[in-house]
Amino acid sequence: MGPLHESDNNMPAQQPSGQPQSGSKIADDFDVILPGPMEVRRGSRLGDTRVRMVLPAKQPFHRLREGTLEATESVEVPEGRLQQAGYWLKRALIGVPIATARADQERLTKFKALAVLSSDAISSVAFATEAILINLVAAGTAALAWTLPISLVILALLVVVTLSYRQTIPAYPNGGGSYIVARENLGTLPGLVAAAALMIDYVLNVAVCVAAGVHNVISLFPSLQPYVIAMDLALVLIMTVLNLRGIRESGTIFALPTYFFIVSAFLLIGVGLTRAYVFNHQPLIGHFVPTVQAIEPLTIFILLRSFATGCSAMTGVEAISNGIPIFRKPETRNASITLTTMACILGALFLGITLLAMTYATQAEPSGNPTVIAKIASDVFAGPLVFLFPIFQLSVLGILTLSAETSYADFPRLASLLARDKFLPSMFSFRGDRLAFSSGIIALALLAGLLLVVFKGDTNALINLFAVGVFIAFTLSQSGMVVHWWRRRATHRGWRRSMIINGLGAVTTALVAIIVAIMKFMEGAWIVVILIPVMVWLFRSIAHHYHLVAQERTFDLPLRPQDIHHRVIIPIDRLDRATIQSLAYARSISDHVTAVHVDVDEERANQLRADWQRWQRYIPDDEGVNLLIIASPFRSLIRPLLAYIDVVHQRHPETVLTVVLPEFVVSHWWEYPLHNQTALRLKTSLLFRPGIAVLNLPQHLRTRMPSGAAHPPE
Amino acid sequence: MGPLHESDNNMPAQQPSGQPQSGSKIADDFDVILPGPMEVRRGSRLGDTRVRMVLPAKQPFHRLREGTLEATESVEVPEGRLQQAGYWLKRALIGVPIATARADQERLTKFKALAVLSSDAISSVAFATEAILINLVAAGTAALAWTLPISLVILALLVVVTLSYRQTIPAYPNGGGSYIVARENLGTLPGLVAAAALMIDYVLNVAVCVAAGVHNVISLFPSLQPYVIAMDLALVLIMTVLNLRGIRESGTIFALPTYFFIVSAFLLIGVGLTRAYVFNHQPLIGHFVPTVQAIEPLTIFILLRSFATGCSAMTGVEAISNGIPIFRKPETRNASITLTTMACILGALFLGITLLAMTYATQAEPSGNPTVIAKIASDVFAGPLVFLFPIFQLSVLGILTLSAETSYADFPRLASLLARDKFLPSMFSFRGDRLAFSSGIIALALLAGLLLVVFKGDTNALINLFAVGVFIAFTLSQSGMVVHWWRRRATHRGWRRSMIINGLGAVTTALVAIIVAIMKFMEGAWIVVILIPVMVWLFRSIAHHYHLVAQERTFDLPLRPQDIHHRVIIPIDRLDRATIQSLAYARSISDHVTAVHVDVDEERANQLRADWQRWQRYIPDDEGVNLLIIASPFRSLIRPLLAYIDVVHQRHPETVLTVVLPEFVVSHWWEYPLHNQTALRLKTSLLFRPGIAVLNLPQHLRTRMPSGAAHPPE
Repeated sequence: MGPLHESDNNMPAQQPSGQPQSGSKIADDFDVILPGPMEVRRGSRLGDTRVRMVLPAKQPFHRLREGTLEATESVEVPEGRLQQAGYWLKRALIGVPIATARADQERLTKFKALAVLSSDAISSVAFATEAILINLVAAGTAALAWTLPISLVILALLVVVTLSYRQTIPAYPNGGGSYIVARENLGTLPGLVAAAALMIDYVLNVAVCVAAGVHNVISLFPSLQPYVIAMDLALVLIMTVLNLRGIRESGTIFALPTYFFIVSAFLLIGVGLTRAYVFNHQPLIGHFVPTVQAIEPLTIFILLRSFATGCSAMTGVEAISNGIPIFRKPETRNASITLTTMACILGALFLGITLLAMTYATQAEPSGNPTVIAKIASDVFAGPLVFLFPIFQLSVLGILTLSAETSYADFPRLASLLARDKFLPSMFSFRGDRLAFSSGIIALALLAGLLLVVFKGDTNALINLFAVGVFIAFTLSQSGMVVHWWRRRATHRGWRRSMIINGLGAVTTALVAIIVAIMKFMEGAWIVVILIPVMVWLFRSIAHHYHLVAQERTFDLPLRPQDIHHRVIIPIDRLDRATIQSLAYARSISDHVTAVHVDVDEERANQLRADWQRWQRYIPDDEGVNLLIIASPFRSLIRPLLAYIDVVHQRHPETVLTVVLPEFVVSHWWEYPLHNQTALRLKTSLLFRPGIAVLNLPQHLRTRMPSGAAHPPE
Repeated sequence: MGPLHESDNNMPAQQPSGQPQSGSKIADDFDVILPGPMEVRRGSRLGDTRVRMVLPAKQPFHRLREGTLEATESVEVPEGRLQQAGYWLKRALIGVPIATARADQERLTKFKALAVLSSDAISSVAFATEAILINLVAAGTAALAWTLPISLVILALLVVVTLSYRQTIPAYPNGGGSYIVARENLGTLPGLVAAAALMIDYVLNVAVCVAAGVHNVISLFPSLQPYVIAMDLALVLIMTVLNLRGIRESGTIFALPTYFFIVSAFLLIGVGLTRAYVFNHQPLIGHFVPTVQAIEPLTIFILLRSFATGCSAMTGVEAISNGIPIFRKPETRNASITLTTMACILGALFLGITLLAMTYATQAEPSGNPTVIAKIASDVFAGPLVFLFPIFQLSVLGILTLSAETSYADFPRLASLLARDKFLPSMFSFRGDRLAFSSGIIALALLAGLLLVVFKGDTNALINLFAVGVFIAFTLSQSGMVVHWWRRRATHRGWRRSMIINGLGAVTTALVAIIVAIMKFMEGAWIVVILIPVMVWLFRSIAHHYHLVAQERTFDLPLRPQDIHHRVIIPIDRLDRATIQSLAYARSISDHVTAVHVDVDEERANQLRADWQRWQRYIPDDEGVNLLIIASPFRSLIRPLLAYIDVVHQRHPETVLTVVLPEFVVSHWWEYPLHNQTALRLKTSLLFRPGIAVLNLPQHLRTRMPSGAAHPPE
């Protein structure tokens, strides 16, 4: 006996006419689901009557076409006071949801994209020159003259890398980060290595930038010292919320500090150089006053170490090619222009500040405190321009802190690419309410927050970990491009020139990577060398798991309904109205229902047996429902039930076993402990048994009575 | 179309012959559930063939009678390595489970019951006398002479209370605790007040005893001081595990320290009195040396306060009448004899120690350090008997610590009575593996552990809270007995005498309760005065909730299977083999299945639509299964589904809505985050919607293929 079906006005009125038409089988449940008064419309064909709803103000769906509805914003609001409060808080923090269709409008202009994607690179001019000076001074003040040549080499490197990436952008218009380029051209493993290196760097960058920003604030207000970590975390939280508001809003917010710094820095260089060469007629390179004695001879080692440290100016250069999809159309053209603009600004600022350092900072020991750039600024903005000094310092503070934004822009995007390729859980590929990759943003914030807490807000030790990852990623990306051009040599005009540029980039960045790794190995780069393989292993394990799942996802069930023979087991405690209802449900599924009572109290079992026999008089013809009592001498409820279910399942592989569990749903969470958690424990145990379906009948207090229900037998 | 049923050898062979016979409908699934080879037996009637299993070594069930199985011990062992390890650890700690049928053999002899139920009362002689002395000394040393009269009053009180309880025991042979007696005779509220007062006292007793025991150990080994709380909790844990092993085993273990103390104390009294009166010819009452000046005059207030404090000797007296069911048969006779024995021992020890105190402790200030009893013992066991002193001290330590056992014996029993009457969650009424009320034991341990942690193992402040609860319980119990006898005045010979004894008990204990409450109010008794109403409110709320549940427990379902018309909604992601299997399951339940796909990625939705149309060609005649695609412009998965489910549920109150959720079960817990928690979140949300059944199809990796399953359409 199967469930009968009533005549139903809302069933599709069309009848299948022999041959199934394509598309006719896709359900049109639209009429069914709109609440509100009805309006009957005669269709053009016989029997094609439509019942149309007059829509209420807040309709949950509207119809796109046959078989397809579109949810409206109103379905997003949850029920329940607490949930609604949470919903409105979320709205207040990150704004109203943005429809997927509006994605294009959320993209960034070149002006804003430059601010978001270059803040990391440009901020590095604030400390790259100083890094070179500090390394050279070990060989005495005289060695500081090498600053300029080293800076020029770094500038040359910047030119090579920029040219290389300008070729990557049009070749990979959907985001040509190192991961994509390396994976497509070199294979999965190099791609994952590049991804791991970049992800590590992004996390480090957020931690270091936030710590630096808070550190600067505390040097202004020392009484805030006890709250360092709280301030760090608050800053991470603020940046996270701003980024969850979507790329357009965060772009607008973060444009200000970036341009503020660029303008301030150019002002500093302009004023400084004018002062020195125009007014004071100083030579181009100042003579360093020999205040510091050499503690080691000037060797190639020292020069290489200085170079390696100075390469921190290059971090963040690849951000633009990673982030192509956030540009307005035409993306590749806009991205290329922005990359060139950024490289010019970066190069000019780096060269300018190096020149200023060689002019103004010739008499002091480069020790890091005060910073070289602060010393230069206080010298340049002397006399009538002194009011500019604090403004410039503020701009440095702003760019240092907010250069974390580049990580916020690129990390979630990289994570989404990995998730798309199944190397990370799929949630990283979902866009949140504001089209941002929320999971990636939150993961980045959590990891950076963890680093800040572990290192107690003192992340200086982490700075040495940076450059290795960056140059590994550079190298893999450029090598990938070399392969890319070689493969396209038949079709692509000028492949030779492109390959040479990328080859040059690959060779130079590989050299730098090796130099940096060796020079910085003991200072922390070894951590990256260990972390990258671990992360690659993790990525591959996740992918392997998803692969297995896709291969072996199957139920222990037949494929056709007519092959399914149900058996239902339903644990019962006593025979009351609710039990009879659940037995009716079970009976409506299957011809073979066994109600099982675990007897831990003989009196109750006898009562049940008596009730059962009395009840059976009301259903005299029904052979499909049986009572089984299992005496449990050790008073356990779950284990005998499970053992029985297992035995039935084992001995009846041809049937589909469904366990019906009436579940008690109370009005308040604190009422839960008042009910036996037997159903919950049984469900948990059954979850790990393949091929047994579990049906929860939620049972509510004070629920309305079903209309037309028969009276209980007593 | 309903699910077909194959011919099934294991179905009951009997066919219904018109009129249903009483009893014939109770399922005999016994044959079905025993794994192992089969043996066919011809029955005596035509068609009554039985298939009998040859039982394997570890059969999970054996048959008691038609429709009734008995689980064997083998079903208790869980699957899974971790669960099995847990199981064997539990077995090692608390022993093999004891069958309910063996309950009688687990009862205690009078000898052991006295130890378990009297340790609380008898241990109090170790400090009751001292409590009187410390209070009297405020009025100067001369006032100490009042110790004897006060002790005699307390002794008289003990006689009255004992006589009263001797009458309660035969009247309430199933446990005549204050709760039962007060509830039956005075009403629910007084019963709950008595229960609350006693439960508070039991918890306090455990915390105070354990803290005292550990405190004594630490005074021997001061280097253990930092581990006070850890030692407290370890002691609670040990006592908990011992009690979980069942009343018989804990009775055996705890008999030793109780009798050790009783023997030691009588030895002390015997030796002491002999020494003083026989050898030294001292007067019966020593002259107290006026070492301490009065700081306040000797008023009735001081005398009452001393009396109130001394009444701590009475705590635990009612334990025996609470614990009647742990005695061997005849319970009431054994309990009465034990009560009398205990009262005699208690009275003799109390009087003896008071006499010793007045003889030996006349020259020292009663300050609590060293304790009066230690001072007496060191004086009595002087000279050749000095080796007895540490032994006596050890016995005091033992009884003080282990008098917590009385609480462990009575608290779970009281909780089980409350649970039986629905004033506590029903789990408190279940007997554990060893027939002990495990939940009550664990709850007591948790509460006492909490007190110990909160008070950092220094529970002296809690001692003042004790006596109020005890005397409230006494009073309510005795008043209840007065009503009891009055009601039975027609049938019970000698009701007048019984009523007078209990009335005397009620009046005196009420007086003491008032005195104690007033005298100790500021010292902490106020906490009890607040806690009791709170607990009574809690009990009543719980009972009210259970009452509502019993009244209104119902599903939103018809009572007869033929009235149930199913509608099934099944969220799908794509159309693969597993989806087709779950659709087949859904279709086998209902003629109206809607597969709902929430479209957050148009490409996937189009792919699904195409796959669906291709699949439909394989089931051309089936109108029962439809596809609905809901575009979700804001990329949320759950909310549109819920909104759709709600609308369908609202508009089709005549159908029973079942949501089929394929649930992914992975092999390792750490694989869970790799899968969308969509099903879980959906399930949680649906749980709070009345009338919607949720069916989980657990989906396993590497599960065996169902035999005879058709090939997937592609």
